[in-house]
Amino acid sequence: MTEITPYRRKAQYYETDQMGIIHHSNYIRWFEETRVDYLDKCEISYQRIEEIGIIIPVLEVLATYKEMVRFNDQVLIYTKVDEYTGTRLTLSYEIRNQTNELLTTGYSKHCFLSAETGRLISLKKSFPEVHQKFLNM
Amino acid sequence: MTEITPYRRKAQYYETDQMGIIHHSNYIRWFEETRVDYLDKCEISYQRIEEIGIIIPVLEVLATYKEMVRFNDQVLIYTKVDEYTGTRLTLSYEIRNQTNELLTTGYSKHCFLSAETGRLISLKKSFPEVHQKFLNM
Amino acid sequence: MTEITPYRRKAQYYETDQMGIIHHSNYIRWFEETRVDYLDKCEISYQRIEEIGIIIPVLEVLATYKEMVRFNDQVLIYTKVDEYTGTRLTLSYEIRNQTNELLTTGYSKHCFLSAETGRLISLKKSFPEVHQKFLNM
Amino acid sequence: MTEITPYRRKAQYYETDQMGIIHHSNYIRWFEETRVDYLDKCEISYQRIEEIGIIIPVLEVLATYKEMVRFNDQVLIYTKVDEYTGTRLTLSYEIRNQTNELLTTGYSKHCFLSAETGRLISLKKSFPEVHQKFLNM
Repeated sequence: MTEITPYRRKAQYYETDQMGIIHHSNYIRWFEETRVDYLDKCEISYQRIEEIGIIIPVLEVLATYKEMVRFNDQVLIYTKVDEYTGTRLTLSYEIRNQTNELLTTGYSKHCFLSAETGRLISLKKSFPEVHQKFLNM
Repeated sequence: MTEITPYRRKAQYYETDQMGIIHHSNYIRWFEETRVDYLDKCEISYQRIEEIGIIIPVLEVLATYKEMVRFNDQVLIYTKVDEYTGTRLTLSYEIRNQTNELLTTGYSKHCFLSAETGRLISLKKSFPEVHQKFLNM
Repeated sequence: MTEITPYRRKAQYYETDQMGIIHHSNYIRWFEETRVDYLDKCEISYQRIEEIGIIIPVLEVLATYKEMVRFNDQVLIYTKVDEYTGTRLTLSYEIRNQTNELLTTGYSKHCFLSAETGRLISLKKSFPEVHQKFLNM
Repeated sequence: MTEITPYRRKAQYYETDQMGIIHHSNYIRWFEETRVDYLDKCEISYQRIEEIGIIIPVLEVLATYKEMVRFNDQVLIYTKVDEYTGTRLTLSYEIRNQTNELLTTGYSKHCFLSAETGRLISLKKSFPEVHQKFLNM
């Protein structure tokens, strides 16, 4: 696994709620931003993945909130592959602030579907080149 | 034009921001909810429109905020067709509270595109039945 | 525990993504809508809770996606209290379609904080009336 | 007026809708991101503005969509002050792609309110230092 730089993100005003903190639903979106960025850094373009007919829906997502994030805070989001089986993918996430304090953790579980048929596909069988890239992550 | 009942909407917690009010971007989404609901009440299902190959993108949107809306407020959203030409559509919106006070006004301008080619279409020429329903609104 | 009617929700156009389904992050928001609605039906107004100085942040949220939801689908969201200790609250959720098919499950874990000090509070000690309502849920 | 570098933004997956384009409501949020970034570059921290008791609500927002933006597109957002009177502020926006093609234009109108009283304030009178910075933009 190559060392990947974390994803940087500034908390936006429209992401706050009336508690004065970032609304918890937005972290699920930040996980997605991080995932796309990470795949990109591993030379797996999410856009090209969809162009060749693969979609990667979310099967499950978990977020555990330890510390609040506020407007204008700069966060660093780390991700790594926890499991990849050729048909399933699990990524875990850590959101940290500038002083490396752990703010949020979580994971997302995915499968691979054919955009055309909607059926489960095995990357190993159907897209061996993409499979190889996932193995190298 | 038939009398259409307004669209009812409760302001949600995740729509608030740290000013303690509904974030202004959400009203653009409420306009869309109202538009879909209104077309539905006029027997124009947005879903079926897309199924027969028409998409209705937004060309322009304006919102003027007069009074703030807060979490849990119940609002009534009125809409009507300001202009329909067979190729273009303009709807205007009024958001009012339970005591009929005017909170927000706005409009949205639309055209009709073929989902297949991405080109402008004239409902009058290509979909005369849908055209007739828009005329009756 | 009283029998509570489920929360009804129509999937909105702006909640779709380019896969043609409701984006997974929106379910976290639907859970919140359901939670607020449920507390309301149990005569615990979320708005009043905040007015008397209690905030109920999310400590953890999980969503498991079984079936996709599409634009204009009508869903029913069921919730119940899984655990309430006087200082902690866990709710679980089930999203079902009109034919009662299970689409999504999940839970959210919460604590109670003083809006003023930001410290953990025990509803049992500090707000016995609210505590009693939570016990009756 | 100093030359300010435009705001850079990548269109996110969760910002797409089932038309396969960025949902129009998100541009209103991008305008806000750009506004905060611009004020920051002019040494007016939005965060500090709120800390000293000023809120800057939106009175009106307009967006005109010329070309669609798609997932993963990199856009540059330009903004400038169209009008500043000491009590009112209007900013205009241009969203352009990497080849400088104009995709979206718009504006936002604002006033200044006291966070404490909710009343209109004149920056010129009440916050002459902040007023001077707005004049210098």
